[in-house]
Amino acid sequence: MSVLVFLDTAFPAGRVADASVPQLLATDLGATRGDGVFESMLAVDGHPRKLASHLARMAGSAAALRLEFPPPERWEPAIRTALAEFARVYGDQQAVVKLLLTRGPEGAGQPTAWVQASPVPPSAAEQRRTGLDVLLLDRGYDSTVAERAPWLLLGSKTLSYAVNMASIRYAHEHGADDVIFTSSDGLVLEGPTSTVVLAEVKDGVKTLLTPELESGILPGTTQSALFDAAAKSGWQLGYGPLQPDRLHQADGVWLVSSIRLLAPVRSIDGKAIPVSRELTAELAALVETVL
Amino acid sequence: MSVLVFLDTAFPAGRVADASVPQLLATDLGATRGDGVFESMLAVDGHPRKLASHLARMAGSAAALRLEFPPPERWEPAIRTALAEFARVYGDQQAVVKLLLTRGPEGAGQPTAWVQASPVPPSAAEQRRTGLDVLLLDRGYDSTVAERAPWLLLGSKTLSYAVNMASIRYAHEHGADDVIFTSSDGLVLEGPTSTVVLAEVKDGVKTLLTPELESGILPGTTQSALFDAAAKSGWQLGYGPLQPDRLHQADGVWLVSSIRLLAPVRSIDGKAIPVSRELTAELAALVETVL
Repeated sequence: MSVLVFLDTAFPAGRVADASVPQLLATDLGATRGDGVFESMLAVDGHPRKLASHLARMAGSAAALRLEFPPPERWEPAIRTALAEFARVYGDQQAVVKLLLTRGPEGAGQPTAWVQASPVPPSAAEQRRTGLDVLLLDRGYDSTVAERAPWLLLGSKTLSYAVNMASIRYAHEHGADDVIFTSSDGLVLEGPTSTVVLAEVKDGVKTLLTPELESGILPGTTQSALFDAAAKSGWQLGYGPLQPDRLHQADGVWLVSSIRLLAPVRSIDGKAIPVSRELTAELAALVETVL
Repeated sequence: MSVLVFLDTAFPAGRVADASVPQLLATDLGATRGDGVFESMLAVDGHPRKLASHLARMAGSAAALRLEFPPPERWEPAIRTALAEFARVYGDQQAVVKLLLTRGPEGAGQPTAWVQASPVPPSAAEQRRTGLDVLLLDRGYDSTVAERAPWLLLGSKTLSYAVNMASIRYAHEHGADDVIFTSSDGLVLEGPTSTVVLAEVKDGVKTLLTPELESGILPGTTQSALFDAAAKSGWQLGYGPLQPDRLHQADGVWLVSSIRLLAPVRSIDGKAIPVSRELTAELAALVETVL
Protein backbone atom coordinates (compact mmCIF):
# COMPACT_ATOMS: atom_id res chain seq x y z
CA MET A 1 0.00 0.00 0.00
CA SER A 2 1.22 3.51 -0.79
CA VAL A 3 1.84 6.23 1.76
CA LEU A 4 0.01 9.49 1.00
CA VAL A 5 0.75 12.95 2.34
CA PHE A 6 -1.33 15.87 1.12
CA LEU A 7 -0.05 19.43 1.05
CA ASP A 8 -2.46 21.23 3.33
CA THR A 9 -1.90 24.68 4.85
CA ALA A 10 -3.42 23.43 8.12
CA PHE A 11 -0.65 20.80 8.39
CA PRO A 12 2.81 22.35 7.98
CA ALA A 13 4.47 18.91 7.68
CA GLY A 14 1.76 17.64 5.32
CA ARG A 15 -1.43 15.75 6.09
CA VAL A 16 -0.95 11.97 6.18
CA ALA A 17 -3.87 10.19 4.52
CA ASP A 18 -4.93 6.58 4.20
CA ALA A 19 -4.35 5.38 0.62
CA SER A 20 -6.86 2.57 1.05
CA VAL A 21 -9.81 4.96 1.30
CA PRO A 22 -10.91 7.62 -1.22
CA GLN A 23 -8.97 10.88 -0.92
CA LEU A 24 -9.87 12.71 -4.14
CA LEU A 25 -13.13 14.36 -5.12
CA ALA A 26 -14.63 12.78 -8.24
CA THR A 27 -14.75 16.28 -9.76
CA ASP A 28 -11.00 16.84 -9.39
CA LEU A 29 -9.77 18.02 -12.78
CA GLY A 30 -6.78 15.73 -12.37
CA ALA A 31 -9.18 12.80 -12.59
CA THR A 32 -11.63 14.18 -15.15
CA ARG A 33 -9.22 16.00 -17.52
CA GLY A 34 -5.71 14.73 -16.74
CA ASP A 35 -5.17 18.39 -15.90
CA GLY A 36 -2.10 18.43 -13.71
CA VAL A 37 1.59 17.62 -13.51
CA PHE A 38 3.76 15.09 -11.69
CA GLU A 39 7.26 13.85 -10.95
CA SER A 40 8.61 10.47 -9.87
CA MET A 41 11.90 10.05 -8.05
CA LEU A 42 13.79 7.38 -6.18
CA ALA A 43 14.45 7.67 -2.45
CA VAL A 44 17.36 5.73 -1.00
CA ASP A 45 17.90 5.59 2.77
CA GLY A 46 15.09 8.10 3.22
CA HIS A 47 16.78 10.59 0.86
CA PRO A 48 14.98 11.56 -2.39
CA ARG A 49 17.48 11.68 -5.24
CA LYS A 50 17.79 14.79 -7.42
CA LEU A 51 15.00 16.48 -5.48
CA ALA A 52 15.95 19.98 -6.60
CA SER A 53 15.97 18.93 -10.29
CA HIS A 54 12.56 17.27 -9.96
CA LEU A 55 11.04 20.27 -8.19
CA ALA A 56 12.51 22.63 -10.82
CA ARG A 57 11.15 20.54 -13.69
CA MET A 58 7.76 20.25 -12.01
CA ALA A 59 7.65 24.02 -11.54
CA GLY A 60 8.29 24.37 -15.27
CA SER A 61 5.54 21.90 -16.13
CA ALA A 62 3.14 23.71 -13.80
CA ALA A 63 4.00 27.06 -15.40
CA ALA A 64 3.24 25.64 -18.86
CA LEU A 65 -0.19 24.58 -17.57
CA ARG A 66 -0.68 27.91 -15.73
CA LEU A 67 -0.93 26.02 -12.46
CA GLU A 68 0.17 27.67 -9.26
CA PHE A 69 3.13 25.65 -7.98
CA PRO A 70 3.55 25.21 -4.22
CA PRO A 71 7.11 26.26 -3.38
CA PRO A 72 9.79 23.70 -2.39
CA GLU A 73 9.36 24.74 1.29
CA ARG A 74 5.90 23.21 1.13
CA TRP A 75 6.83 20.03 -0.75
CA GLU A 76 9.93 19.23 1.27
CA PRO A 77 8.32 18.70 4.71
CA ALA A 78 5.56 16.62 3.09
CA ILE A 79 8.18 14.45 1.37
CA ARG A 80 10.01 14.01 4.68
CA THR A 81 6.77 13.02 6.37
CA ALA A 82 5.96 10.56 3.57
CA LEU A 83 9.41 8.96 3.76
CA ALA A 84 9.26 8.69 7.56
CA GLU A 85 5.87 7.00 7.27
CA PHE A 86 7.20 4.76 4.47
CA ALA A 87 10.18 3.71 6.63
CA ARG A 88 7.83 2.87 9.50
CA VAL A 89 5.98 0.45 7.20
CA TYR A 90 8.70 -0.80 4.83
CA GLY A 91 11.92 -0.36 6.80
CA ASP A 92 14.97 0.64 4.76
CA GLN A 93 13.54 -0.34 1.34
CA GLN A 94 14.02 2.10 -1.51
CA ALA A 95 10.89 4.13 -2.31
CA VAL A 96 9.27 5.61 -5.38
CA VAL A 97 8.31 9.15 -4.39
CA LYS A 98 5.68 10.73 -6.64
CA LEU A 99 4.72 14.38 -6.43
CA LEU A 100 1.33 15.19 -7.94
CA LEU A 101 -0.38 18.51 -8.55
CA THR A 102 -3.80 18.84 -10.17
CA ARG A 103 -5.95 21.86 -11.00
CA GLY A 104 -8.20 20.72 -8.15
CA PRO A 105 -11.95 20.20 -8.01
CA GLU A 106 -13.98 21.80 -10.78
CA GLY A 107 -14.95 25.31 -9.79
CA ALA A 108 -12.88 25.34 -6.59
CA GLY A 109 -9.94 27.26 -8.03
CA GLN A 110 -7.70 25.44 -5.56
CA PRO A 111 -5.09 22.92 -6.72
CA THR A 112 -4.74 19.49 -5.14
CA ALA A 113 -1.17 18.49 -4.26
CA TRP A 114 0.13 15.34 -2.69
CA VAL A 115 3.13 13.10 -2.21
CA GLN A 116 2.91 9.35 -2.71
CA ALA A 117 5.61 6.97 -1.49
CA SER A 118 5.50 3.33 -2.55
CA PRO A 119 7.82 0.36 -2.97
CA VAL A 120 9.92 0.14 -6.15
CA PRO A 121 8.25 -2.31 -8.56
CA PRO A 122 10.32 -5.48 -9.13
CA SER A 123 10.27 -4.78 -12.90
CA ALA A 124 12.75 -1.91 -12.41
CA ALA A 125 15.62 -4.11 -11.25
CA GLU A 126 14.69 -6.83 -13.71
CA GLN A 127 14.80 -4.49 -16.72
CA ARG A 128 18.15 -3.11 -15.58
CA ARG A 129 19.50 -6.65 -15.50
CA THR A 130 17.92 -8.25 -18.55
CA GLY A 131 17.64 -5.27 -20.87
CA LEU A 132 14.82 -4.17 -23.10
CA ASP A 133 13.36 -5.02 -26.48
CA VAL A 134 12.01 -1.76 -27.85
CA LEU A 135 9.88 -0.65 -30.78
CA LEU A 136 10.34 2.63 -32.58
CA LEU A 137 6.93 4.31 -32.68
CA ASP A 138 5.99 7.54 -34.43
CA ARG A 139 5.05 10.20 -31.85
CA GLY A 140 3.19 12.06 -34.61
CA TYR A 141 4.84 15.42 -33.93
CA ASP A 142 7.66 16.85 -35.97
CA SER A 143 10.82 17.89 -34.13
CA THR A 144 10.20 21.64 -34.57
CA VAL A 145 6.60 21.91 -33.35
CA ALA A 146 7.38 22.25 -29.62
CA GLU A 147 8.73 25.77 -29.95
CA ARG A 148 5.98 26.89 -32.35
CA ALA A 149 3.07 25.42 -30.42
CA PRO A 150 3.36 25.86 -26.64
CA TRP A 151 -0.27 24.72 -26.21
CA LEU A 152 0.86 21.17 -27.03
CA LEU A 153 2.71 21.14 -23.68
CA LEU A 154 5.64 19.21 -25.16
CA GLY A 155 8.43 19.05 -22.62
CA SER A 156 5.94 19.23 -19.72
CA LYS A 157 5.26 16.21 -17.54
CA THR A 158 1.49 16.29 -17.35
CA LEU A 159 -0.99 13.80 -15.88
CA SER A 160 -2.32 13.28 -19.42
CA TYR A 161 -0.29 10.13 -19.99
CA ALA A 162 -2.87 8.01 -21.85
CA VAL A 163 -0.77 8.03 -25.05
CA ASN A 164 2.40 7.10 -23.17
CA MET A 165 0.56 4.20 -21.52
CA ALA A 166 -1.07 3.12 -24.81
CA SER A 167 2.34 3.09 -26.51
CA ILE A 168 3.81 0.79 -23.89
CA ARG A 169 0.73 -1.45 -24.16
CA TYR A 170 1.21 -1.50 -27.95
CA ALA A 171 4.82 -2.60 -27.43
CA HIS A 172 3.73 -5.39 -25.07
CA GLU A 173 1.10 -6.57 -27.54
CA HIS A 174 3.83 -6.75 -30.18
CA GLY A 175 6.35 -8.73 -28.13
CA ALA A 176 8.46 -5.80 -26.95
CA ASP A 177 9.05 -4.24 -23.53
CA ASP A 178 9.19 -0.54 -24.22
CA VAL A 179 9.16 2.19 -26.85
CA ILE A 180 11.44 4.82 -28.34
CA PHE A 181 9.36 7.54 -29.94
CA THR A 182 10.46 9.09 -33.22
CA SER A 183 9.34 12.41 -34.65
CA SER A 184 7.30 12.58 -37.85
CA ASP A 185 10.45 13.95 -39.52
CA GLY A 186 12.37 10.85 -38.53
CA LEU A 187 14.38 11.80 -35.45
CA VAL A 188 14.87 9.87 -32.24
CA LEU A 189 12.90 11.48 -29.39
CA GLU A 190 12.45 9.71 -26.04
CA GLY A 191 10.76 6.79 -24.35
CA PRO A 192 7.22 7.15 -22.93
CA THR A 193 8.75 7.23 -19.42
CA SER A 194 12.47 7.59 -20.11
CA THR A 195 15.26 9.42 -21.89
CA VAL A 196 17.30 7.78 -24.66
CA VAL A 197 21.09 7.70 -24.22
CA LEU A 198 23.64 6.32 -26.73
CA ALA A 199 27.33 5.61 -26.37
CA GLU A 200 29.78 5.80 -29.25
CA VAL A 201 33.36 4.68 -28.74
CA LYS A 202 35.90 5.55 -31.41
CA ASP A 203 39.71 5.54 -31.21
CA GLY A 204 39.48 5.37 -27.42
CA VAL A 205 37.18 8.41 -27.22
CA LYS A 206 33.89 7.69 -25.50
CA THR A 207 30.91 9.91 -26.30
CA LEU A 208 27.49 9.93 -24.65
CA LEU A 209 24.68 11.24 -26.83
CA THR A 210 21.03 12.12 -26.31
CA PRO A 211 18.39 13.85 -28.45
CA GLU A 212 18.32 17.65 -28.18
CA LEU A 213 15.66 19.21 -25.96
CA GLU A 214 14.44 21.47 -28.78
CA SER A 215 12.82 18.42 -30.39
CA GLY A 216 10.07 18.63 -27.76
CA ILE A 217 11.23 15.95 -25.34
CA LEU A 218 11.09 16.09 -21.56
CA PRO A 219 14.38 17.25 -20.03
CA GLY A 220 15.65 14.07 -18.34
CA THR A 221 16.80 14.59 -14.77
CA THR A 222 18.69 11.28 -14.73
CA GLN A 223 20.17 11.82 -18.20
CA SER A 224 21.31 15.30 -17.20
CA ALA A 225 22.94 14.12 -13.97
CA LEU A 226 24.51 11.15 -15.77
CA PHE A 227 25.96 13.47 -18.41
CA ASP A 228 27.47 15.71 -15.72
CA ALA A 229 29.04 12.70 -13.99
CA ALA A 230 30.25 11.21 -17.29
CA ALA A 231 31.90 14.47 -18.34
CA LYS A 232 33.81 14.53 -15.07
CA SER A 233 35.10 11.03 -15.74
CA GLY A 234 36.32 11.83 -19.24
CA TRP A 235 33.36 11.22 -21.54
CA GLN A 236 32.60 13.53 -24.43
CA LEU A 237 28.97 14.68 -24.60
CA GLY A 238 26.80 15.15 -27.66
CA TYR A 239 23.22 16.23 -28.35
CA GLY A 240 20.97 15.26 -31.28
CA PRO A 241 19.43 15.49 -33.87
CA LEU A 242 19.83 11.73 -34.04
CA GLN A 243 18.40 9.48 -36.71
CA PRO A 244 17.32 5.92 -35.86
CA ASP A 245 20.37 4.56 -37.76
CA ARG A 246 22.53 5.95 -35.00
CA LEU A 247 20.80 3.63 -32.52
CA HIS A 248 21.72 0.60 -34.58
CA GLN A 249 25.32 1.78 -35.09
CA ALA A 250 25.93 2.83 -31.47
CA ASP A 251 28.12 0.88 -29.06
CA GLY A 252 25.25 0.91 -26.61
CA VAL A 253 21.74 2.33 -26.17
CA TRP A 254 20.00 2.77 -22.81
CA LEU A 255 16.70 4.07 -21.52
CA VAL A 256 17.35 6.11 -18.40
CA SER A 257 14.82 7.30 -15.85
CA SER A 258 14.59 8.05 -12.15
CA ILE A 259 13.21 4.72 -10.94
CA ARG A 260 14.52 2.17 -13.45
CA LEU A 261 17.79 4.14 -13.64
CA LEU A 262 19.73 2.73 -16.63
CA ALA A 263 18.32 -0.17 -18.66
CA PRO A 264 20.20 -1.40 -21.75
CA VAL A 265 18.31 -1.77 -25.02
CA ARG A 266 18.99 -5.18 -26.54
CA SER A 267 16.85 -4.99 -29.67
CA ILE A 268 15.08 -2.37 -31.76
CA ASP A 269 12.12 -3.41 -33.90
CA GLY A 270 13.17 -7.02 -33.45
CA LYS A 271 16.77 -6.46 -34.58
CA ALA A 272 19.42 -7.15 -31.94
CA ILE A 273 21.85 -4.37 -31.08
CA PRO A 274 25.08 -4.82 -29.17
CA VAL A 275 24.80 -4.66 -25.37
CA SER A 276 28.13 -3.85 -23.79
CA ARG A 277 28.41 -5.18 -20.25
CA GLU A 278 31.40 -2.93 -19.62
CA LEU A 279 29.75 0.30 -20.77
CA THR A 280 26.53 -0.60 -18.95
CA ALA A 281 28.45 -1.27 -15.74
CA GLU A 282 30.44 1.95 -16.11
CA LEU A 283 27.37 4.11 -16.76
CA ALA A 284 25.34 2.36 -14.04
CA ALA A 285 28.12 3.16 -11.59
CA LEU A 286 27.98 6.81 -12.68
CA VAL A 287 24.20 6.84 -12.21
CA GLU A 288 24.74 5.49 -8.70
CA THR A 289 26.80 8.60 -7.89
CA VAL A 290 23.81 10.83 -8.74
CA LEU A 291 22.24 11.99 -5.50
CA MET B 1 -22.97 20.44 -6.45
CA SER B 2 -22.84 17.49 -8.82
CA VAL B 3 -24.73 14.26 -8.39
CA LEU B 4 -22.53 11.14 -8.48
CA VAL B 5 -23.57 7.57 -9.11
CA PHE B 6 -20.90 4.86 -9.24
CA LEU B 7 -21.30 1.65 -11.19
CA ASP B 8 -21.05 -1.00 -8.51
CA THR B 9 -22.09 -4.63 -8.87
CA ALA B 10 -23.53 -4.53 -5.33
CA PHE B 11 -25.96 -1.77 -6.42
CA PRO B 12 -27.88 -2.73 -9.58
CA ALA B 13 -29.22 0.84 -9.99
CA GLY B 14 -25.83 2.38 -9.22
CA ARG B 15 -24.39 3.57 -5.92
CA VAL B 16 -25.25 7.20 -5.16
CA ALA B 17 -22.27 9.02 -3.67
CA ASP B 18 -21.74 12.42 -2.09
CA ALA B 19 -19.75 14.62 -4.48
CA SER B 20 -18.66 16.89 -1.63
CA VAL B 21 -16.51 14.18 -0.04
CA PRO B 22 -13.64 12.22 -1.62
CA GLN B 23 -14.79 9.27 -3.72
CA LEU B 24 -11.65 8.32 -5.67
CA LEU B 25 -8.51 6.62 -4.43
CA ALA B 26 -5.45 8.83 -4.92
CA THR B 27 -3.85 5.92 -6.79
CA ASP B 28 -6.63 5.71 -9.39
CA LEU B 29 -4.92 5.70 -12.79
CA GLY B 30 -7.55 8.14 -14.01
CA ALA B 31 -6.10 10.69 -11.62
CA THR B 32 -2.41 9.79 -11.91
CA ARG B 33 -2.17 9.00 -15.65
CA GLY B 34 -5.30 10.45 -17.30
CA ASP B 35 -5.85 6.79 -18.18
CA GLY B 36 -9.52 6.49 -18.95
CA VAL B 37 -12.31 7.66 -21.22
CA PHE B 38 -15.40 9.81 -20.90
CA GLU B 39 -18.52 11.20 -22.55
CA SER B 40 -20.64 14.29 -21.88
CA MET B 41 -24.24 14.57 -22.93
CA LEU B 42 -27.21 16.81 -22.33
CA ALA B 43 -30.28 15.57 -20.47
CA VAL B 44 -33.57 17.37 -21.07
CA ASP B 45 -36.63 16.51 -18.98
CA GLY B 46 -34.70 13.66 -17.41
CA HIS B 47 -33.89 12.17 -20.82
CA PRO B 48 -30.22 11.92 -21.91
CA ARG B 49 -29.90 12.90 -25.56
CA LYS B 50 -28.16 10.61 -28.04
CA LEU B 51 -27.42 8.12 -25.28
CA ALA B 52 -26.87 5.20 -27.67
CA SER B 53 -24.37 7.24 -29.75
CA HIS B 54 -22.45 8.31 -26.66
CA LEU B 55 -22.30 4.79 -25.28
CA ALA B 56 -21.16 3.46 -28.66
CA ARG B 57 -18.43 6.10 -28.96
CA MET B 58 -17.31 5.47 -25.39
CA ALA B 59 -17.12 1.73 -26.07
CA GLY B 60 -14.87 2.54 -29.02
CA SER B 61 -12.65 4.80 -26.91
CA ALA B 62 -12.43 2.12 -24.22
CA ALA B 63 -11.47 -0.51 -26.80
CA ALA B 64 -8.66 1.73 -28.09
CA LEU B 65 -7.35 1.94 -24.52
CA ARG B 66 -7.89 -1.80 -23.92
CA LEU B 67 -10.29 -0.93 -21.10
CA GLU B 68 -13.15 -3.27 -20.29
CA PHE B 69 -16.33 -1.35 -21.01
CA PRO B 70 -19.36 -1.93 -18.78
CA PRO B 71 -22.30 -2.75 -21.06
CA PRO B 72 -25.16 -0.28 -21.60
CA GLU B 73 -27.35 -2.33 -19.23
CA ARG B 74 -25.03 -1.26 -16.43
CA TRP B 75 -24.74 2.41 -17.41
CA GLU B 76 -28.41 2.98 -18.09
CA PRO B 77 -29.81 2.32 -14.59
CA ALA B 78 -26.99 4.43 -13.09
CA ILE B 79 -27.85 7.29 -15.44
CA ARG B 80 -31.53 7.02 -14.50
CA THR B 81 -30.60 7.09 -10.82
CA ALA B 82 -28.36 10.12 -11.36
CA LEU B 83 -31.08 12.01 -13.24
CA ALA B 84 -33.70 11.19 -10.63
CA GLU B 85 -31.36 12.45 -7.92
CA PHE B 86 -30.55 15.54 -10.03
CA ALA B 87 -34.26 16.29 -10.48
CA ARG B 88 -34.78 16.01 -6.72
CA VAL B 89 -32.15 18.74 -6.21
CA TYR B 90 -32.51 20.91 -9.32
CA GLY B 91 -36.09 20.32 -10.47
CA ASP B 92 -36.60 20.32 -14.22
CA GLN B 93 -33.32 22.03 -15.15
CA GLN B 94 -31.31 20.56 -18.00
CA ALA B 95 -28.35 18.48 -16.86
CA VAL B 96 -24.87 17.74 -18.10
CA VAL B 97 -24.47 13.99 -17.78
CA LYS B 98 -20.89 12.78 -17.79
CA LEU B 99 -19.90 9.14 -17.99
CA LEU B 100 -16.39 8.37 -16.78
CA LEU B 101 -14.37 5.18 -16.88
CA THR B 102 -10.81 4.90 -15.60
CA ARG B 103 -8.37 2.00 -15.45
CA GLY B 104 -8.98 2.03 -11.69
CA PRO B 105 -6.56 2.03 -8.77
CA GLU B 106 -2.98 1.05 -9.56
CA GLY B 107 -2.57 -2.70 -9.20
CA ALA B 108 -6.29 -3.37 -8.63
CA GLY B 109 -7.06 -4.44 -12.19
CA GLN B 110 -10.57 -3.14 -11.68
CA PRO B 111 -11.89 -0.09 -13.59
CA THR B 112 -13.66 2.77 -11.85
CA ALA B 113 -16.88 3.90 -13.55
CA TRP B 114 -19.28 6.63 -12.59
CA VAL B 115 -21.97 8.99 -13.78
CA GLN B 116 -21.91 12.66 -12.89
CA ALA B 117 -24.95 14.92 -13.37
CA SER B 118 -24.55 18.66 -12.95
CA PRO B 119 -26.22 21.89 -14.04
CA VAL B 120 -25.43 23.25 -17.52
CA PRO B 121 -22.86 26.06 -17.18
CA PRO B 122 -24.24 29.49 -18.15
CA SER B 123 -21.45 29.87 -20.73
CA ALA B 124 -23.16 27.29 -22.98
CA ALA B 125 -26.25 29.42 -23.66
CA GLU B 126 -24.17 32.59 -23.85
CA GLN B 127 -21.84 31.20 -26.50
CA ARG B 128 -24.79 29.97 -28.54
CA ARG B 129 -26.20 33.49 -28.45
CA THR B 130 -23.12 35.68 -28.85
CA GLY B 131 -20.93 33.45 -30.97
CA LEU B 132 -17.26 32.68 -30.72
CA ASP B 133 -13.96 34.27 -31.61
CA VAL B 134 -11.64 31.38 -32.44
CA LEU B 135 -7.95 30.89 -33.12
CA LEU B 136 -6.59 28.32 -35.52
CA LEU B 137 -3.95 26.35 -33.64
CA ASP B 138 -1.67 23.65 -34.99
CA ARG B 139 -2.51 20.27 -33.40
CA GLY B 140 0.95 19.06 -34.37
CA TYR B 141 -0.26 15.86 -36.06
CA ASP B 142 -0.60 15.40 -39.79
CA SER B 143 -3.96 14.27 -41.13
CA THR B 144 -2.76 10.77 -42.02
CA VAL B 145 -1.11 9.73 -38.76
CA ALA B 146 -4.26 8.46 -37.01
CA GLU B 147 -4.53 5.36 -39.17
CA ARG B 148 -0.79 4.65 -39.09
CA ALA B 149 -0.34 5.14 -35.34
CA PRO B 150 -3.18 3.70 -33.24
CA TRP B 151 -1.10 4.23 -30.07
CA LEU B 152 -1.74 7.98 -30.40
CA LEU B 153 -5.41 7.29 -29.55
CA LEU B 154 -6.61 9.90 -32.05
CA GLY B 155 -10.36 9.68 -32.35
CA SER B 156 -10.68 8.40 -28.77
CA LYS B 157 -12.15 10.57 -26.05
CA THR B 158 -9.65 9.98 -23.25
CA LEU B 159 -9.31 11.64 -19.86
CA SER B 160 -5.92 12.97 -21.05
CA TYR B 161 -7.29 16.38 -21.97
CA ALA B 162 -4.45 18.60 -20.73
CA VAL B 163 -3.61 19.75 -24.28
CA ASN B 164 -7.26 20.48 -25.06
CA MET B 165 -7.52 22.56 -21.89
CA ALA B 166 -4.18 24.31 -22.54
CA SER B 167 -5.32 25.22 -26.05
CA ILE B 168 -8.49 26.86 -24.76
CA ARG B 169 -6.44 28.71 -22.12
CA TYR B 170 -4.08 29.86 -24.88
CA ALA B 171 -7.07 31.20 -26.82
CA HIS B 172 -8.35 33.07 -23.74
CA GLU B 173 -4.90 34.57 -23.12
CA HIS B 174 -4.93 35.81 -26.72
CA GLY B 175 -8.37 37.40 -26.63
CA ALA B 176 -10.33 34.54 -28.20
CA ASP B 177 -12.98 32.16 -26.87
CA ASP B 178 -12.13 28.86 -28.45
CA VAL B 179 -9.90 26.99 -30.88
CA ILE B 180 -10.10 25.19 -34.19
CA PHE B 181 -7.19 22.78 -34.51
CA THR B 182 -5.43 22.36 -37.83
CA SER B 183 -3.22 19.47 -38.89
CA SER B 184 0.47 19.95 -39.53
CA ASP B 185 -0.35 19.50 -43.24
CA GLY B 186 -2.76 22.41 -43.10
CA LEU B 187 -6.22 20.88 -42.82
CA VAL B 188 -9.09 21.88 -40.55
CA LEU B 189 -9.56 19.29 -37.78
CA GLU B 190 -11.85 19.99 -34.80
CA GLY B 191 -12.23 22.10 -31.70
CA PRO B 192 -10.77 20.95 -28.37
CA THR B 193 -14.30 20.06 -27.20
CA SER B 194 -16.36 20.37 -30.40
CA THR B 195 -16.78 19.46 -34.06
CA VAL B 196 -16.42 22.05 -36.84
CA VAL B 197 -19.35 22.46 -39.22
CA LEU B 198 -19.50 24.77 -42.26
CA ALA B 199 -22.39 25.81 -44.47
CA GLU B 200 -22.00 26.72 -48.12
CA VAL B 201 -24.98 28.08 -50.03
CA LYS B 202 -24.72 28.29 -53.81
CA ASP B 203 -27.51 28.69 -56.39
CA GLY B 204 -30.07 27.78 -53.74
CA VAL B 205 -28.25 24.56 -52.82
CA LYS B 206 -27.28 24.36 -49.17
CA THR B 207 -24.39 22.12 -48.18
CA LEU B 208 -23.20 21.22 -44.68
CA LEU B 209 -19.55 20.25 -44.44
CA THR B 210 -17.31 18.82 -41.77
CA PRO B 211 -13.74 17.45 -41.75
CA GLU B 212 -13.41 13.76 -42.59
CA LEU B 213 -12.96 11.33 -39.70
CA GLU B 214 -9.84 9.82 -41.27
CA SER B 215 -7.96 12.98 -40.31
CA GLY B 216 -7.89 11.72 -36.71
CA ILE B 217 -10.75 13.72 -35.22
CA LEU B 218 -13.32 12.53 -32.73
CA PRO B 219 -16.55 11.39 -34.40
CA GLY B 220 -19.01 14.10 -33.35
CA THR B 221 -22.28 12.73 -32.00
CA THR B 222 -24.03 16.10 -32.41
CA GLN B 223 -22.52 16.73 -35.84
CA SER B 224 -23.59 13.28 -36.98
CA ALA B 225 -27.15 13.70 -35.73
CA LEU B 226 -27.32 17.22 -37.17
CA PHE B 227 -26.18 15.92 -40.56
CA ASP B 228 -28.85 13.22 -40.51
CA ALA B 229 -31.52 15.78 -39.68
CA ALA B 230 -30.21 18.27 -42.25
CA ALA B 231 -30.18 15.66 -45.01
CA LYS B 232 -33.84 14.91 -44.28
CA SER B 233 -34.70 18.58 -44.67
CA GLY B 234 -32.94 18.97 -48.00
CA TRP B 235 -29.33 19.81 -47.22
CA GLN B 236 -26.45 18.33 -49.18
CA LEU B 237 -23.68 16.87 -47.03
CA GLY B 238 -19.95 17.02 -47.57
CA TYR B 239 -16.87 15.74 -45.79
CA GLY B 240 -13.34 17.20 -45.78
CA PRO B 241 -10.40 17.52 -46.43
CA LEU B 242 -11.00 21.22 -45.79
CA GLN B 243 -8.38 23.92 -45.85
CA PRO B 244 -8.70 26.94 -43.53
CA ASP B 245 -9.59 29.15 -46.54
CA ARG B 246 -12.89 27.31 -46.71
CA LEU B 247 -13.74 28.61 -43.21
CA HIS B 248 -13.28 32.19 -44.37
CA GLN B 249 -15.25 31.65 -47.57
CA ALA B 250 -18.12 29.72 -45.98
CA ASP B 251 -21.60 31.16 -45.44
CA GLY B 252 -21.35 30.09 -41.81
CA VAL B 253 -19.09 28.18 -39.44
CA TRP B 254 -20.21 26.61 -36.16
CA LEU B 255 -18.70 24.62 -33.35
CA VAL B 256 -21.13 21.90 -32.36
CA SER B 257 -21.06 19.75 -29.26
CA SER B 258 -23.44 17.96 -26.94
CA ILE B 259 -23.74 20.62 -24.25
CA ARG B 260 -23.17 23.91 -26.07
CA LEU B 261 -25.04 22.49 -29.08
CA LEU B 262 -24.43 24.91 -31.97
CA ALA B 263 -22.36 28.06 -31.48
CA PRO B 264 -21.60 30.32 -34.45
CA VAL B 265 -18.01 31.36 -35.11
CA ARG B 266 -17.83 35.12 -35.63
CA SER B 267 -14.10 35.55 -36.16
CA ILE B 268 -11.06 33.43 -36.98
CA ASP B 269 -7.61 34.64 -35.96
CA GLY B 270 -9.09 38.10 -35.40
CA LYS B 271 -10.70 38.31 -38.84
CA ALA B 272 -14.50 38.55 -38.85
CA ILE B 273 -16.47 35.97 -40.81
CA PRO B 274 -20.12 36.26 -41.75
CA VAL B 275 -22.61 35.02 -39.15
CA SER B 276 -25.94 34.18 -40.73
CA ARG B 277 -28.81 34.50 -38.28
CA GLU B 278 -31.05 32.55 -40.64
CA LEU B 279 -28.71 29.59 -41.10
CA THR B 280 -27.88 29.54 -37.38
CA ALA B 281 -31.58 29.51 -36.49
CA GLU B 282 -32.31 26.80 -39.04
CA LEU B 283 -29.46 24.55 -37.88
CA ALA B 284 -30.21 25.21 -34.20
CA ALA B 285 -33.77 24.09 -34.83
CA LEU B 286 -32.45 20.91 -36.44
CA VAL B 287 -30.16 20.29 -33.46
CA GLU B 288 -33.22 20.65 -31.20
CA THR B 289 -34.83 17.72 -33.02
CA VAL B 290 -31.88 15.48 -32.06
CA LEU B 291 -32.95 13.24 -29.19
